[in-house]
Amino acid sequence: MAAEVVVLTVSYVGDGFAGFARQPGMRTVQGEVERALAVTLRREVTTVGAGRTDAGVHALGQVMSFEADGSEPADHILRRSLNALVGEGIAIRDVRRAREGFSARHSAVLREYRYRLVVGPVPPLFLAPVAWWVRGELDVEAMQAASAHLVGEHDFRSFCVTASAEGKRTTRRVDAIELFGEQLLGEDSLVIRVTGNAFLHSMVRVLVGTLAEVGAGRRAPDWTADVLAARQRSAAGPTAPAHGLTLWDVEYADGWFLPESGGMDTPGAVC
Amino acid sequence: MAAEVVVLTVSYVGDGFAGFARQPGMRTVQGEVERALAVTLRREVTTVGAGRTDAGVHALGQVMSFEADGSEPADHILRRSLNALVGEGIAIRDVRRAREGFSARHSAVLREYRYRLVVGPVPPLFLAPVAWWVRGELDVEAMQAASAHLVGEHDFRSFCVTASAEGKRTTRRVDAIELFGEQLLGEDSLVIRVTGNAFLHSMVRVLVGTLAEVGAGRRAPDWTADVLAARQRSAAGPTAPAHGLTLWDVEYADGWFLPESGGMDTPGAVC
Repeated sequence: MAAEVVVLTVSYVGDGFAGFARQPGMRTVQGEVERALAVTLRREVTTVGAGRTDAGVHALGQVMSFEADGSEPADHILRRSLNALVGEGIAIRDVRRAREGFSARHSAVLREYRYRLVVGPVPPLFLAPVAWWVRGELDVEAMQAASAHLVGEHDFRSFCVTASAEGKRTTRRVDAIELFGEQLLGEDSLVIRVTGNAFLHSMVRVLVGTLAEVGAGRRAPDWTADVLAARQRSAAGPTAPAHGLTLWDVEYADGWFLPESGGMDTPGAVC
Repeated sequence: MAAEVVVLTVSYVGDGFAGFARQPGMRTVQGEVERALAVTLRREVTTVGAGRTDAGVHALGQVMSFEADGSEPADHILRRSLNALVGEGIAIRDVRRAREGFSARHSAVLREYRYRLVVGPVPPLFLAPVAWWVRGELDVEAMQAASAHLVGEHDFRSFCVTASAEGKRTTRRVDAIELFGEQLLGEDSLVIRVTGNAFLHSMVRVLVGTLAEVGAGRRAPDWTADVLAARQRSAAGPTAPAHGLTLWDVEYADGWFLPESGGMDTPGAVC
């Protein structure tokens, strides 16, 4: 069997984890999933993730991949085993196979993040775990005008944690920034949907914090053009809280994926 | 000033409370709101609630009322004060005034409850606090057929905790039971929306537990007619978990409500 790649679509609630990336002695999403894989497959597995979300950031459609060695059970069995083994706060939504050479990180062509805010005097209740509460009013039209300056290929150094940008290329392509209202569980929220090829560390959160400055009337909409041009973190607005952010979706070229594998007939599955 | 009635619309997350109704030494919704009212209004206040939700049950539009004594601040100021004083997990959505004689409980003409389920092999994550996870499949059409027997005025003794029904009238009118799918925060859920004039203790949860028996194929849709006729709790299905249930809305005749009051000019408000 060629070195197929196993691809997991993973959701998690950010609160219970010290971020996505594996760290010794910490409960992380990657650590939990790799632990579950090790139990199920009876070997050490090193995964690659599409987005290294920070502590507190949620994911609906995070993607993780690792090389198959041919001993894996069928995809639906693997999914069931992993869901039984990963701890609370993680769910494996989907298991599929890709051709040799696929990487959840490097093969991604589009990433979508959604940031949720609850605006106004009444605090969010049911949305509290997934939304940033902004007590005042926000001028959504001004935020929309401000976001237009950020769409396209730009050097986003101003929107990046300084230390992580040093000596690195900080140009990224943002395809769209959309703002829309959404009522969920009876509560009104404002969603900022950002899509692009890739994002710098904390980029979406700084972008949201910067748009919120405009929305609150503390800055004019065209200020975001100056922020971009400054190419330093101090020019931008504050970093919006982690718990409002969700890595929503990651897209790949269809050609990567293989039809569902029957896998090994001997179930290595736990349930 | 006539004995106007102050009417609060209150939301809460059920987890943090030993139910709605005041109980000595316990954290309850009524207890928290009355404590906040006592601080704001500098007098003891006894409230009436539209629905006595059990521990763990949520509310979006619970309604509470108490008699004004004319010293209350304007409605929007009272709302702000109360929101600053009630603890986490409660929000006062609205404050308005009604004519003398209004009671949040006795004047209600319609109550709406919504019960949310997540059905299938993947556990709910973002919806986990507000949805019952049913791992198997549910036949929604069968549940719809089963629910038709329960609409109308019936003796719902079979759907009521036995002890609380003793010696009491257990006839209630259910106006509608609707089942519909809803995708929230990227997760699919099934909602059972129940409206009626009033409900017995645990009635909606027993109703949902009974419909789930039909949905899972353990009972035929017409079984619910037999359950009704039996008039004893043991005939019905299990009580569905509290955290899937939300008191969604309570309706009153429009004629009860007064235009917004300016209230006293001396702000008794805390913020």
